[in-house]
Parts: sequence; structure tokens; C-alpha cells
Amino acid sequence: MNKGQVFIISGPSGSGKDTLLVELFKACPELKFSISSITRDMREGEVEGAKYNFISQDAFKKMIVENELLEYNCYVGNYYGTPKAPVEKAVNDGFDIIIEVDVNGAAQIREKLKNAISIFIMPPSFAELERRLVGRGTEAKELIEKRMKSALGEIKRANEYDYIVVNGEIDTAVQDIISIIRSCKLNFKNQKNIIDEVLEKC
Amino acid sequence: MNKGQVFIISGPSGSGKDTLLVELFKACPELKFSISSITRDMREGEVEGAKYNFISQDAFKKMIVENELLEYNCYVGNYYGTPKAPVEKAVNDGFDIIIEVDVNGAAQIREKLKNAISIFIMPPSFAELERRLVGRGTEAKELIEKRMKSALGEIKRANEYDYIVVNGEIDTAVQDIISIIRSCKLNFKNQKNIIDEVLEKC
Repeated sequence: MNKGQVFIISGPSGSGKDTLLVELFKACPELKFSISSITRDMREGEVEGAKYNFISQDAFKKMIVENELLEYNCYVGNYYGTPKAPVEKAVNDGFDIIIEVDVNGAAQIREKLKNAISIFIMPPSFAELERRLVGRGTEAKELIEKRMKSALGEIKRANEYDYIVVNGEIDTAVQDIISIIRSCKLNFKNQKNIIDEVLEKC
Repeated sequence: MNKGQVFIISGPSGSGKDTLLVELFKACPELKFSISSITRDMREGEVEGAKYNFISQDAFKKMIVENELLEYNCYVGNYYGTPKAPVEKAVNDGFDIIIEVDVNGAAQIREKLKNAISIFIMPPSFAELERRLVGRGTEAKELIEKRMKSALGEIKRANEYDYIVVNGEIDTAVQDIISIIRSCKLNFKNQKNIIDEVLEKC
């Protein structure tokens, strides 16, 4: 059986990444999603084990010490990270797995998993990025400016990614990601089995 | 406007490559096909300019001398080759183009076009390869054995290709190739324009 493949997906605020991932998982129910471990309090509407596992600071620090994380970050006193074991299990069981992570986390994972394929989700234009960030509601101007600065900071690092998917029309973007996943499995190294099978019979 | 992309497609006798390409071009009428120049006589049913341009030995030798071919080969006294100019024009006009060529031709093209993406079409199994080669009709045993030897010789060089598409079920194989074409256009280097557009506005 072929092993699964790790796909890293990043995208700034305003890229529409979250909605895109929901649609991707609807279209590809066999895809696995890497659940992050985090130490902040659960927010209203969040469910343990859906997108996050909520764990204590001590438990998180133990994972750091024991090298059980593919990447982690500390933000406003809370830890966020990607546990290594479930990703390894998915890949060994032949499942493709999506790790949703920011540009810093993506860089850490690339160091550890050289075969990971990374995809950056882009807003279709600067005007649309601005519209999406401003259009979120009645938030303070400073908060919007902070988000815009952070988004542009991430976009400047899009060159670290293998693929860029522009999220203008969501169905197109979902199909783009599905094409990337499908084509990666057709790479020579992932198809060596069939060639060996034919050649060993002759 | 983004440039087009060159895709090299090879596959041995028995891979079902010809039928697959017919279906691919039906599904993707915007794809261009590289027409080979050849010096052998036209066979019944062949049309000038469809799959081949039929030219004289002198005209072919002039193309060799003037470096106007991406690849060429001489087989039983006849020349076969891929003219450079139409491929360059298609790419510059933004069209993706398919060059159907054998493993030797593919190696020559890779040397000249470093960005070309190459796809090898495989039969699904040794048993099926055998069935397809034997099943062609009432041909002599020696001819079948020669074809099998040639097919296995090509399969041994499948490792020179970026992607392997197994042609068991034809619709699946067509979709595989479409995924490869689509995903190649999402490569970071082909998407740089959109990133520059967003960043230059900020």
C-alpha cells in the first residue's frame, strides 16, 4: 500500500481559507485533518477534538521537551502546535492529511517533513483582500489595519510554498486543491510500485 | 499573460497512449498538439498536418543543420522530429502544448526545455500489457515479442519522467493528466503575477 501524503495549507486572514477547507473536506471525505493542540481556553461554539485539542500548559511543555510536535508557536501566552504522532499514523495508514498552519508553522514542518507539499491560499486581488478584511463588521480601524499588515506579511512569504491557489471563486479553488492532491500521487516516486510490478514479471 | 507549459507524453506500445490522447484532446480542446515532421511516405488514412508534416529528407536535414528541432531520430532510414518554432509560439501565446514522443525524444527535449513536464503512460499490469500486445490480431509471434521487448525497454526508463499515469480505466487516466496540467499551472513560479499584484498595491 502506498503511504499517504502531508499537505500544508496556509493562507492569511482575508484569503477565505477556512470556508475553502470546509468545502474541500465536503468534497473529499477521505482526507484527514490534523488537529492542533492548544492551551488557550475553549471559545463558545468550539468542540474538543474538532479543530483543536485543548490541553494544559504543562501537557504542552511536556510535548515540546519530548519532541512530539511538528511545529509550535507561543502567541499572547498561549501555545499552539501540531502533534507529530497522528500525522505519522495517517501517512502510514495510507491517508493524505491536511495541516492548516501559518507561515511560521509551515516553515518548521518543512524542515521536519521534506516530502510535505505546501499550498498557499491567496485572495484574488488587493482590492478584494481589503474588502474582505474591512467587510467583517464593525471592528475598530486599528484592528483592521493590524490584520491587513499581518496578511501582507504572510503573502510576502508565499514564495516558500510549492503551490499558490487563488481563492476568488470557491468551487474553482477547491478543484485546484483537489488537482494538486491528485497529481502529487502521480509523481514518479509514488508510482514506483506499478513499474516494479510490470518489470519483475518479465 | 502567463506563458503556456510544455508537456511531454510517452508510453510504450500497449499503454493505450493513442486512445488516451484522443480522449484528452476531446476533454481539453484548448490544448495544442505538437505536429512532428517526418520523412517517410504517407500511409493510407493519414492526413498532412494532422499528426505529422510529411517533408523531404533534404528539408529535414536542413532543419537539423539549422538547429530547428527539439529532438529527432532516424529509424529504418526515415527521420522523425519535433520542430522547435511551433512549440515556442504556442508557449509564448499562452497555450499548453503536448509533445507525444518516445523515451529517446523525451530525453532530448528535457535537455533543451528544462521546464517541460514529462508524463509516462503505463499499462496497468504486465498481464494486461501482454494481453494488449497479443490481442492486436493475427500478427507473427516474432513481431509481438519484438513489441514486448521494446515496451519493457521503455518502461525501464519511466524513472526519467515527472509523472506516471496508469492507463487502466481510460476516464480515470484522462482525469489524471488533466489534474497534472491544472496543478502545474498552480506552481509558485506560474502564480508569481498575482502575488506581485497584491504586494505592489500595498
